[in-house]
Amino acid sequence: MSETSSSETESARLGRRLRLGMVGGGQGAFIGAVHRIAARLDDRYELVAGALSSAPERAKASASELYISPDRAYASVEEMVEKEAGRTDRVDVVSIVTPNHLHFPAAKLLLEAGFHVICDKPMTTSAEESAELVEIVKRTGKLFMLTHNYTGYPMIRQARAMVQDGAIGKLRIVQVEYAQDWLTEPLEQTGQKQASWRTDPKRSGAGGCIGDIGSHGYNLANFVSNEKPSELLGELSHFVDGRVLDDNVQILLRYGSGAKGALWASQVAPGNENSLRLRVYGDKGGLEWAQEDPNYLFYSPFGQPTQKLTRGGNGAGDPAQAVSRIPGGHPEGYLEAFGSLYNQFAEVLSAHILGNPAPDCAALLPSVEDGLDGLRFIEAAVASSSEGGVWKRL
Amino acid sequence: MSETSSSETESARLGRRLRLGMVGGGQGAFIGAVHRIAARLDDRYELVAGALSSAPERAKASASELYISPDRAYASVEEMVEKEAGRTDRVDVVSIVTPNHLHFPAAKLLLEAGFHVICDKPMTTSAEESAELVEIVKRTGKLFMLTHNYTGYPMIRQARAMVQDGAIGKLRIVQVEYAQDWLTEPLEQTGQKQASWRTDPKRSGAGGCIGDIGSHGYNLANFVSNEKPSELLGELSHFVDGRVLDDNVQILLRYGSGAKGALWASQVAPGNENSLRLRVYGDKGGLEWAQEDPNYLFYSPFGQPTQKLTRGGNGAGDPAQAVSRIPGGHPEGYLEAFGSLYNQFAEVLSAHILGNPAPDCAALLPSVEDGLDGLRFIEAAVASSSEGGVWKRL
Amino acid sequence: MSETSSSETESARLGRRLRLGMVGGGQGAFIGAVHRIAARLDDRYELVAGALSSAPERAKASASELYISPDRAYASVEEMVEKEAGRTDRVDVVSIVTPNHLHFPAAKLLLEAGFHVICDKPMTTSAEESAELVEIVKRTGKLFMLTHNYTGYPMIRQARAMVQDGAIGKLRIVQVEYAQDWLTEPLEQTGQKQASWRTDPKRSGAGGCIGDIGSHGYNLANFVSNEKPSELLGELSHFVDGRVLDDNVQILLRYGSGAKGALWASQVAPGNENSLRLRVYGDKGGLEWAQEDPNYLFYSPFGQPTQKLTRGGNGAGDPAQAVSRIPGGHPEGYLEAFGSLYNQFAEVLSAHILGNPAPDCAALLPSVEDGLDGLRFIEAAVASSSEGGVWKRL
Amino acid sequence: MSETSSSETESARLGRRLRLGMVGGGQGAFIGAVHRIAARLDDRYELVAGALSSAPERAKASASELYISPDRAYASVEEMVEKEAGRTDRVDVVSIVTPNHLHFPAAKLLLEAGFHVICDKPMTTSAEESAELVEIVKRTGKLFMLTHNYTGYPMIRQARAMVQDGAIGKLRIVQVEYAQDWLTEPLEQTGQKQASWRTDPKRSGAGGCIGDIGSHGYNLANFVSNEKPSELLGELSHFVDGRVLDDNVQILLRYGSGAKGALWASQVAPGNENSLRLRVYGDKGGLEWAQEDPNYLFYSPFGQPTQKLTRGGNGAGDPAQAVSRIPGGHPEGYLEAFGSLYNQFAEVLSAHILGNPAPDCAALLPSVEDGLDGLRFIEAAVASSSEGGVWKRL
Repeated sequence: MSETSSSETESARLGRRLRLGMVGGGQGAFIGAVHRIAARLDDRYELVAGALSSAPERAKASASELYISPDRAYASVEEMVEKEAGRTDRVDVVSIVTPNHLHFPAAKLLLEAGFHVICDKPMTTSAEESAELVEIVKRTGKLFMLTHNYTGYPMIRQARAMVQDGAIGKLRIVQVEYAQDWLTEPLEQTGQKQASWRTDPKRSGAGGCIGDIGSHGYNLANFVSNEKPSELLGELSHFVDGRVLDDNVQILLRYGSGAKGALWASQVAPGNENSLRLRVYGDKGGLEWAQEDPNYLFYSPFGQPTQKLTRGGNGAGDPAQAVSRIPGGHPEGYLEAFGSLYNQFAEVLSAHILGNPAPDCAALLPSVEDGLDGLRFIEAAVASSSEGGVWKRL
Repeated sequence: MSETSSSETESARLGRRLRLGMVGGGQGAFIGAVHRIAARLDDRYELVAGALSSAPERAKASASELYISPDRAYASVEEMVEKEAGRTDRVDVVSIVTPNHLHFPAAKLLLEAGFHVICDKPMTTSAEESAELVEIVKRTGKLFMLTHNYTGYPMIRQARAMVQDGAIGKLRIVQVEYAQDWLTEPLEQTGQKQASWRTDPKRSGAGGCIGDIGSHGYNLANFVSNEKPSELLGELSHFVDGRVLDDNVQILLRYGSGAKGALWASQVAPGNENSLRLRVYGDKGGLEWAQEDPNYLFYSPFGQPTQKLTRGGNGAGDPAQAVSRIPGGHPEGYLEAFGSLYNQFAEVLSAHILGNPAPDCAALLPSVEDGLDGLRFIEAAVASSSEGGVWKRL
Repeated sequence: MSETSSSETESARLGRRLRLGMVGGGQGAFIGAVHRIAARLDDRYELVAGALSSAPERAKASASELYISPDRAYASVEEMVEKEAGRTDRVDVVSIVTPNHLHFPAAKLLLEAGFHVICDKPMTTSAEESAELVEIVKRTGKLFMLTHNYTGYPMIRQARAMVQDGAIGKLRIVQVEYAQDWLTEPLEQTGQKQASWRTDPKRSGAGGCIGDIGSHGYNLANFVSNEKPSELLGELSHFVDGRVLDDNVQILLRYGSGAKGALWASQVAPGNENSLRLRVYGDKGGLEWAQEDPNYLFYSPFGQPTQKLTRGGNGAGDPAQAVSRIPGGHPEGYLEAFGSLYNQFAEVLSAHILGNPAPDCAALLPSVEDGLDGLRFIEAAVASSSEGGVWKRL
Repeated sequence: MSETSSSETESARLGRRLRLGMVGGGQGAFIGAVHRIAARLDDRYELVAGALSSAPERAKASASELYISPDRAYASVEEMVEKEAGRTDRVDVVSIVTPNHLHFPAAKLLLEAGFHVICDKPMTTSAEESAELVEIVKRTGKLFMLTHNYTGYPMIRQARAMVQDGAIGKLRIVQVEYAQDWLTEPLEQTGQKQASWRTDPKRSGAGGCIGDIGSHGYNLANFVSNEKPSELLGELSHFVDGRVLDDNVQILLRYGSGAKGALWASQVAPGNENSLRLRVYGDKGGLEWAQEDPNYLFYSPFGQPTQKLTRGGNGAGDPAQAVSRIPGGHPEGYLEAFGSLYNQFAEVLSAHILGNPAPDCAALLPSVEDGLDGLRFIEAAVASSSEGGVWKRL
């Protein structure tokens, strides 16, 4: 049970919960609530400050509901930075859960003011901003985690470790897909909040579907395969009248090693709720995983029967166990995977605060460099497609 | 998002987290940690006191890891009752997560001292004790919830509501099974803690597998079907040499309405981790659900294609939504279902504390009477089997 | 490819197709057409004679459609026996595909006239008749195959061989079920032919659902487990008003070895088309198979991941291969399994005609003794239920 | 039951079985045996002549095993054409089941000699040959069927009809994949017959995997979607050292209507036996089908639960029923789908012989024009890839 702060953990050595602030995520938001549950799950954080909404009334009301003290319910990141900096019990780390275009200015302000940062994805709205953020993180020495939350799933950790250990041999093929259907009709024209900003280039950046979910697929494929493509060719489409950004994306990938890949992301594929699926094949075997049934990993060593590896069960090893809470057959889900990123980042933060070396899990958490990779991927795909479908280097 | 304490909830009206105590669940325990995550998930409780272990050192160490103040780390329930009673910030409710034989004395003590109680199942080790507990709850007027956690799954709520609404017509057949494999070999002889007490009649009661998991299956079938059997015939077996209690149970059920049922529970069925499955059929349709894939409910209206209803997705209505946190395709699991019981009990507790009428969800939470039903079921099955396999009234 | 009569087979040694007659199976019948496809599939038989219907016009018309010569289109079994006996090209073997109550007199007549017999199940309408048939087969020395067709599935052969080879260790638990939904409503009252005779005790015998499909489940469990129960307790129900025979059956089984079983058969379970499923568990592992997805067999060695064995693919061995035609991933189905019984019986018949020893596969084909077992099972279950639900010896 | 030649069918009007010849398919071949079973299944054909092997001894032996009269066991197509032409009981139709490079010369010879032809796919080794064959079929007036056998699956027929009827609305996305693993290692270097010719450009043509299975995927997508792409971009790879032809293919598709597609075919993806899967999405719904579980079709009308349509069961209509033999829940498979092409082609042939109008099913059978489309697809993909990955018109 990762919940128990055994005396061997950095969190246990720290001996207190981390103080968490939040930017965005007020009433009506989706991902902010997810971050809060994730932070609570393993009891490493307490939410003590927030700039939860750009609307002051909503910011106050949201804070109150979350038991945040009124004097730490801020109207803006700027106010948060200013007031928190003066407190002895200042927040250790701040989660940024706003629409995409606000990630960069908030992260810059927080990092430069000395706060560690947790940031939702895509990291910024341009590779240029992302490159600058990489530099800021380096310069400030502050810790930064990007919530590519799907990398927190135990069987994804298991898959990555198996690929590293040679279970599938030399990588040949990557097939990744992320299909949804919620934008099949012009939902943004009804004023629905999530749809509105995600289809608006001013708030989402140059990519629609590719930024919102394609970037997750890309990140997950890289995480598991331990390789990054060197070239891509993208076909971005928008099927709904009046929509400016892509809602369906098909991409071919070439790897320096000779491996080949294909990525499909769609928000207009009826019958798909949140169907992120990854298949990787090498010269010795294959692996298959689906986010909607995340406790299973199917492993096919060439010439032998396919095995169903289960989280907490037979065939799953330490990499999966490290981010599991309960035994096999007791399904963990999306919130637990999200929570595991928070939980492991708490270890990294605690070690940092204590002046201890970073724990091993630090290498598994999505970094500011991964964020930059994601933006480069998005921009290359957009450019490839707008030029008529040509190969682009990554 | 049930996480957001909207101003319409009883919890929001209460305006503070409920103060929670815990009996049992120290280091090395399984279910205690589950209860704590469940309590944290929706931010309605703070754990402030504990009698976490009968071993004083372990009790202290466990409390410290859980940020429980040393002066509220008690050595026994007796001490907890005595000391907490004297505090103005005394605990509102106490969770009992010990081995079965300790449930009754702890619950009795707590209830009579004026504390509300959350208790793990099976409720006691005999129907006699359970009947007494029903009486104590009635007499004290305190609130009591039994954690038949599987009833907290959204698609189980959906199924129950559909049965009530006539989706399957008049009930004819109930097929429920709960298969595990972890006791396939004599694990208890290795000293493994979970196996040891669960196979020991002194700590588990007269039922082994039937009490540990069979009672869950029975409760779930009743919850969804809205009916209770009137007769049963049980075949209890123990397949592992040296084991005294049953590790495999096959039971036939007769309902007063004429419906028929079968229940299979096993802890010696290799390949089954925690495979609780329920199927109910009526003269208009059928429903099928499996705990290991809990976000789906399969509905077969007679003469039409089977439909896959999904949590948070198409076909799931208010009863499921009320205990969901995130959209369809983002799987919720065991901890979320467990957390939903805690979350809804927080509503009931808050209303009680405020003097408000009990909210509707109170009727959905497993009660002390359900606990008594469970023990009667266990005892009838044990008696049926020991008499050679005869029908027994429930 | 079993289709190719390689020179090593008995059929190849015989050097001609077997001449097949058929009793029943005229226009509008279901199972007769299945038998004919099965007989054709591997090209071991040619259908040359028939008493296809008790209605002379229909018998003639049916024969004509099947390219049966008019002089071999008989009006009754009696005529077939008489006329065929006088031919030099007389039929080698006759398939009986009538409603149940006609099986016995037809089989008796054919066997005593010197014809080999293939007979649909249940074999007769009483154990008494079945016992007599066992005696007739023994006395006449003619060959007899009962079409418990599900034993012809490759992965069922695989499962049986694995159990024999110790893959699951000592047998502990058998869970078998066979659920359909086509009799959910009183279909027999509409005059539908299949429903009418199957719900009529005069034509079906004392069992309804238990005879029609329960006997298949029983036979399959015995075939795979290599054990037969010694006691049963049955709960037979009929849920549809006006129906006399059972349409739902729940049965508990005790084995001499100490193993325990449960069988559920139903024809009133909406959403189930032909859902025959078998699970067997021992002290070393478990096996799971479902008829609707017959090319897979799930094998769970205790403590290891579940493996998906596939027909023609990895993990399937000679026993499966012997009744397969095409590679893995190219699904075979119901007709192929049925055809494999015909194909292997052709081997047995050819050897018999040639005076050669019976090939090994003879031991795998459902026999007249299996038919007697089936009737004893049906009668014991009916008796158990009618006496209120008591244990009966088998 | 399509097996019964009811008096309304063209086959029944013809009143005899069609006389079938076969070119290729001798001992050791795979697909020849499949064609023979397919031809036998519904009893519309009798195999009476063969040029089964280019090796005379094997040709004779193979014919003998198949009960072909020695005088019709030919050493070559040329001999077959010459000798059969002189018979009054000459073959009606000839199946060509040789390696690819022999399809064209055999088909040309047979058609020009007045025989109808059934031909395996890909139709020829070049689009040029295919175009010539289209012309020959037109000129001779003979009937021609290409065995794109997957179009014979009932639920594929169902899917096509649903798309035509507007069930998914306007087509947006096609995702088709066909993955196998049998060429993961250099099997052709072991002398294995199937692998040898399929990886040899002299016998297979310019495409390896793309011709062998990619062309099936392409054909199936077109069949179901009722649209053909106008442009493609292909990435062909060969991962096994020493292999010349592609063993993995990723292709992007653009449709004139604005729809977009992606096709993946691979023979080096461990864990995939014969995993042909098709998903199509429109603005009203989606459909999903997998060849390895062919009796199911998943239909997702936007905003409603996904439905599981079953062959012979609820939700499947006439288009599926027309190519089904047995009820739902009794799985049909690969051989049945293959047989349905033969069965329906028998209808077309019988009508032609009788001088009757072609039956409706003629429009559903894969034609010589489909064969030409397939070769154009293969050649465009090969060209696209060899030019570095550029868009090509189809």
